[in-house]
Amino acid sequence: MNHQIRLKSRPTGEPTAANFEAADGPVPETKDGEVLRRTIYLSLDPYMRGRMSDGPSYATPVQIGEVMGGHTVSEVVESRNPAFARGAFVTGYDGWQAYGVSNGKELRTLDPQVVPISTAIGVLGMPGMTAFVGLMDIGQPKPGETVVVSAASGAVGAVVGQLAKIKGCRVVGIAGGQAKCDWVVRELGFDACIDYKAGNLRGDLKEATPKGIDCLFENVGGEIFDTLLTRMNPFSRIALCGLIAQYNSAPYPMQNIGSVLINRIRMQGFIVSDDLSRWPLALKELAGHVAAGRIKYRESVANGLAAAPAAFISLLKGGNFGKQLVKLV
Amino acid sequence: MNHQIRLKSRPTGEPTAANFEAADGPVPETKDGEVLRRTIYLSLDPYMRGRMSDGPSYATPVQIGEVMGGHTVSEVVESRNPAFARGAFVTGYDGWQAYGVSNGKELRTLDPQVVPISTAIGVLGMPGMTAFVGLMDIGQPKPGETVVVSAASGAVGAVVGQLAKIKGCRVVGIAGGQAKCDWVVRELGFDACIDYKAGNLRGDLKEATPKGIDCLFENVGGEIFDTLLTRMNPFSRIALCGLIAQYNSAPYPMQNIGSVLINRIRMQGFIVSDDLSRWPLALKELAGHVAAGRIKYRESVANGLAAAPAAFISLLKGGNFGKQLVKLV
Repeated sequence: MNHQIRLKSRPTGEPTAANFEAADGPVPETKDGEVLRRTIYLSLDPYMRGRMSDGPSYATPVQIGEVMGGHTVSEVVESRNPAFARGAFVTGYDGWQAYGVSNGKELRTLDPQVVPISTAIGVLGMPGMTAFVGLMDIGQPKPGETVVVSAASGAVGAVVGQLAKIKGCRVVGIAGGQAKCDWVVRELGFDACIDYKAGNLRGDLKEATPKGIDCLFENVGGEIFDTLLTRMNPFSRIALCGLIAQYNSAPYPMQNIGSVLINRIRMQGFIVSDDLSRWPLALKELAGHVAAGRIKYRESVANGLAAAPAAFISLLKGGNFGKQLVKLV
Repeated sequence: MNHQIRLKSRPTGEPTAANFEAADGPVPETKDGEVLRRTIYLSLDPYMRGRMSDGPSYATPVQIGEVMGGHTVSEVVESRNPAFARGAFVTGYDGWQAYGVSNGKELRTLDPQVVPISTAIGVLGMPGMTAFVGLMDIGQPKPGETVVVSAASGAVGAVVGQLAKIKGCRVVGIAGGQAKCDWVVRELGFDACIDYKAGNLRGDLKEATPKGIDCLFENVGGEIFDTLLTRMNPFSRIALCGLIAQYNSAPYPMQNIGSVLINRIRMQGFIVSDDLSRWPLALKELAGHVAAGRIKYRESVANGLAAAPAAFISLLKGGNFGKQLVKLV
């Protein structure tokens, strides 16, 4: 059977387990030219919250009764396509289910000898590419500049900060809790990390950014973003990647947009999938850093597809520590 | 005597007449190499509000007791510099006073035969350059796109809209009152203009921008800006030029910044004086349009330096209709 998690109803505010429905479908048949694979890892990402709603979003909504979408790492279990051998590991977009089938055009074959296959949906997947494109193309950090990244221990934020360190920047993270902050500084080499839960965001931020902020990679939004705006330097840049703080709630009333004018800030919202032309370069550079140990990563793994809804609900509240995966096999 | 208006005290909220002080200084002496000129027109501009405060701003604050700064059009009354003949008209930055003196490096000589000299501080001065640079370099409008400009009948907005029409765009203005809206549509050729005082901004905006907004030139901020954000198209641009709605008050709590992410908007705050390299090209293009009647302009003229404070206070509330000048002579 093909175990699946489908969207049962659209959430109002925070999603609950009741918005999801476990179901079994038949394992799809494999036609000529097609590849059947079994999901090993499913990626859970904040953007999925947008797809659960049918309001305006860059993400096409999942329909009620439809399988939730998501990036996956899988093993080929049956192939009628010469490009994919049985037993090969591939990454694709099979969603929250045990099996996927297609002509393989969207798949990329993975070499488990080089790096662990789970990296294909993390540091060397969409989150890593997001970090690379947002930091390099929008943030454009120069050596000696101060780069700040929120959700610093997350799948995207951790790569942003390490890349910025490689580029010679002072890097300040923002994360929830001392454990995440310690990891970001001690393991990833950030210069500082602010625990926003410690209750002194404004003061801690001022101390950690004595020369202001030249480049902000924003994943969170809300009060944190609004406070960060007060520390931006003239001619600074903001890569607006996510607003997870308000995905489940009414928008936070931003007070400090005037800083964009006063400081002639360039702010750019972006979605990495809008422009895939940068992926080959980004993937090559990131893979080199990961293989050499210059970029480290951390994973939170939930076991079994049935654990996916709870893990996703927790992710939206910052309950993950590093890249959130679901291991199906 | 050199009549002057000096900053007497810093305003809290809306400036009042009591923040200004009329005073007489001696007419400055002219040393070797210097040029003395008598002010004919003083430009009043919203940015001056920032210079009355000492909070963070792109504009250096005027000191208490100092003459208020401002762009001027003047006549040379004494010259010990061969580059400037007595009787010549020049534009410079002499501020709120009857006479100015300097070595002339910052002056530009005007030819009254080509266009009226007052244009040098309006459509062919800083406001015109602001419109050109913000629209062309940040807005980057393409033929057929929808361009929206707030404060549409103002010195900057009127040029933005007419330039966008020349570039083949659908142009929608936002202005306060039916008279301004009528002028913008009938005289300047905008496709539509919304009277934000009519009380149906959201509905009127939806009707006037059936295909959304591709390019927003924002002069106002506050509720108008927040509402405009809900109409922005994917991959649209915002040239953030001014936030006059909040210069005298607490910032408006912006609810719709999420649109920047959802629609991958590029928003850029800018001050035209940051990059003067575009001025020669912009001036040439604008002067051609003005001389040919393709770009029209309108002036509100206050008579006498003593009228400057009241005219400025009124300007901040939208009391002007077109470029606000003070005529001294």
